[in-house]
Amino acid sequence: MAALTFELQASGLQGSKARAGKIRTDHGEILTPIFMPVGTVGSVKAVTQQQLKQDINAQIILGNTYHLYLRPGIEVLEAAGGLHRFNGWDRPILTDSGGYQVFSLAANRKIKEEGVMFQSHIDGSRHLFTPEYVMDIQRAIGADIIMAFDECPPYPSDYSYARKSMDLTHRWLNRCFEQLARTEDKYGYTQNLFPIVQGSTYKDLRKASCEFVAEKNAVGNAIGGLSVGEPEEMMYEFTELCAENLPADKPRYLMGVGTPWNILEGIDRGIDMFDCVMPTRNGRNGMLFTTQGLVNIRNKKWAADFSPIDPGLPNEMSQYYTKAYLRHLFVADEILGLQLASIQNLSFYLWLVTTARGHILAGDFSSWKQEMIPILKQRL
Amino acid sequence: MAALTFELQASGLQGSKARAGKIRTDHGEILTPIFMPVGTVGSVKAVTQQQLKQDINAQIILGNTYHLYLRPGIEVLEAAGGLHRFNGWDRPILTDSGGYQVFSLAANRKIKEEGVMFQSHIDGSRHLFTPEYVMDIQRAIGADIIMAFDECPPYPSDYSYARKSMDLTHRWLNRCFEQLARTEDKYGYTQNLFPIVQGSTYKDLRKASCEFVAEKNAVGNAIGGLSVGEPEEMMYEFTELCAENLPADKPRYLMGVGTPWNILEGIDRGIDMFDCVMPTRNGRNGMLFTTQGLVNIRNKKWAADFSPIDPGLPNEMSQYYTKAYLRHLFVADEILGLQLASIQNLSFYLWLVTTARGHILAGDFSSWKQEMIPILKQRL
Repeated sequence: MAALTFELQASGLQGSKARAGKIRTDHGEILTPIFMPVGTVGSVKAVTQQQLKQDINAQIILGNTYHLYLRPGIEVLEAAGGLHRFNGWDRPILTDSGGYQVFSLAANRKIKEEGVMFQSHIDGSRHLFTPEYVMDIQRAIGADIIMAFDECPPYPSDYSYARKSMDLTHRWLNRCFEQLARTEDKYGYTQNLFPIVQGSTYKDLRKASCEFVAEKNAVGNAIGGLSVGEPEEMMYEFTELCAENLPADKPRYLMGVGTPWNILEGIDRGIDMFDCVMPTRNGRNGMLFTTQGLVNIRNKKWAADFSPIDPGLPNEMSQYYTKAYLRHLFVADEILGLQLASIQNLSFYLWLVTTARGHILAGDFSSWKQEMIPILKQRL
Repeated sequence: MAALTFELQASGLQGSKARAGKIRTDHGEILTPIFMPVGTVGSVKAVTQQQLKQDINAQIILGNTYHLYLRPGIEVLEAAGGLHRFNGWDRPILTDSGGYQVFSLAANRKIKEEGVMFQSHIDGSRHLFTPEYVMDIQRAIGADIIMAFDECPPYPSDYSYARKSMDLTHRWLNRCFEQLARTEDKYGYTQNLFPIVQGSTYKDLRKASCEFVAEKNAVGNAIGGLSVGEPEEMMYEFTELCAENLPADKPRYLMGVGTPWNILEGIDRGIDMFDCVMPTRNGRNGMLFTTQGLVNIRNKKWAADFSPIDPGLPNEMSQYYTKAYLRHLFVADEILGLQLASIQNLSFYLWLVTTARGHILAGDFSSWKQEMIPILKQRL
């Protein structure tokens, strides 16, 4: 089996840095730019794997190492033959490193040079994540794309903390690569490590981190530590800076981003991969992203609106069911409402990146983006 | 469009009273014996209409008049063109009369000759259900099969109360038929009224009620007031008595029953139609009905059991996902667990009645039933 490759198919048209490409993994191809639905514990919430393929057209999903390590645990995943076998998803899987959840969910965490001590948010049990152990865990999960173990500093962070944190992340990155080189692919297909750029909101740190990361010559690179509370314009500025300072011939992954317009702005700045819980989480709260704008489906105004959930989306569910029915399901607290809203939002996100890709290839991404953003932001 | 018809295809073989038949409605055929999934407010909980067809093979579903009347309400359903249009279910729909929910869910109910006054369990608003109004509501919902408005006395009820209640149900039945005759099918297809036998656990009352009901010469007849807490043997005894005293050339519907073995025993006594919330409700609690027995999927013993959810069921979901994965979904409180368990249980119930039908037609239902019941009851 072979390491991940990236083929750049179009870039730099109409003054945009947007790129269209094709990633190849041992579990199949991914056309970029791509959005990756988040499957926290091995399930994209409220959606079956069949629906992910048929209705959403997901090409790759995420798993969260922290969650999977706690439940079902590495033993069960190894016994199953990896996460693909365990959850029945046979397309590519990317796992994060668990760092983000350790800092946001776990209790009593302590960062040391060796790694991070923490207590499980579920039962209080104590665990130590080191870069080496996190590589081993992701090997056992069986991800096609493995993320480096990093520290994600909060926004704002002072310069001194941001610099120390970045240096730690870099030392951990070396250990990640060393551990990966020492260990074998677990299930016969190639597992690929993506390093993560940090450096908070300091240009010199971000540049230094990009340089450090680029020298690893990894098959893909990620930008972390953005979309953590900073102003949108600042996120765009640092996305652009990082994209410019990361290899052009490798996919660039902007972690944890974001709204539909965040994604279009990211694509415009040379980002190829995105993930975010927003479509599923907001969907479960009745907030729909549609091709025509934002919909609060609980609103009384939809009670007798028998138009499709989203007339502009090609997927069956969004055409088959009406806004009135979906509103009714939310008002009556029916589980089916969570399913349909999650499918709508994820279908929309995949439609968005696929349509963006079409416009990149056609050479008119910039003008399309300018037209789309006000539509996507409007409240219906 | 045409009134519901029933074609008896096999009965009385191998000493059993089990029957195989075919019901025709304006929304399609129903092969009997049949189990009808309950779609309380127009959604079979946690299941899409696509899954109901493809994975479960449901031929007819139920709606609850009480719930649909309160939410989304008759105005919305009429504006949609009926429940079929509203929820996108284009096969037959049966609605109950709301009587059962008025007695079990609503507050401050008062029974009078005219009807029942009650307060909504949602917002405390006051409503009056009369036999006439309940016919109008079911017309507006657009059910293919409309149930008579009845009083369902609790178990045990004393003779005097049971008799008074039955007499009231009979007077209400006359009013239901009169109102239905006075009003037109709402959406162009025929809406068929099924009367309901009551009489609690008194043989003479049950016989009298069957006689009263049979004289209506309805296209189908229902047995109510069983499976309300009485011993299982008593339920079987009264099921048999009622089945014997209802027309043989019309479908017989045993309301609110039951476990898989209850259903086989009901079929054996000449019942053609069943409904129950058990497969969906138990499924959401992690209790699975399978072709091999009962499974508490939360049990630790399934943690590394990578066999299909139910190897004996033909549906895709129960073959595709494993017990270990489904257990993990329940332990991690994932919504997908509720979906897969609901699909498993409903698929199983439909498989059960379809397989029973095959054995009735083949003439070996009785011996098959004897073999199956101990299997279905065993805890795995």
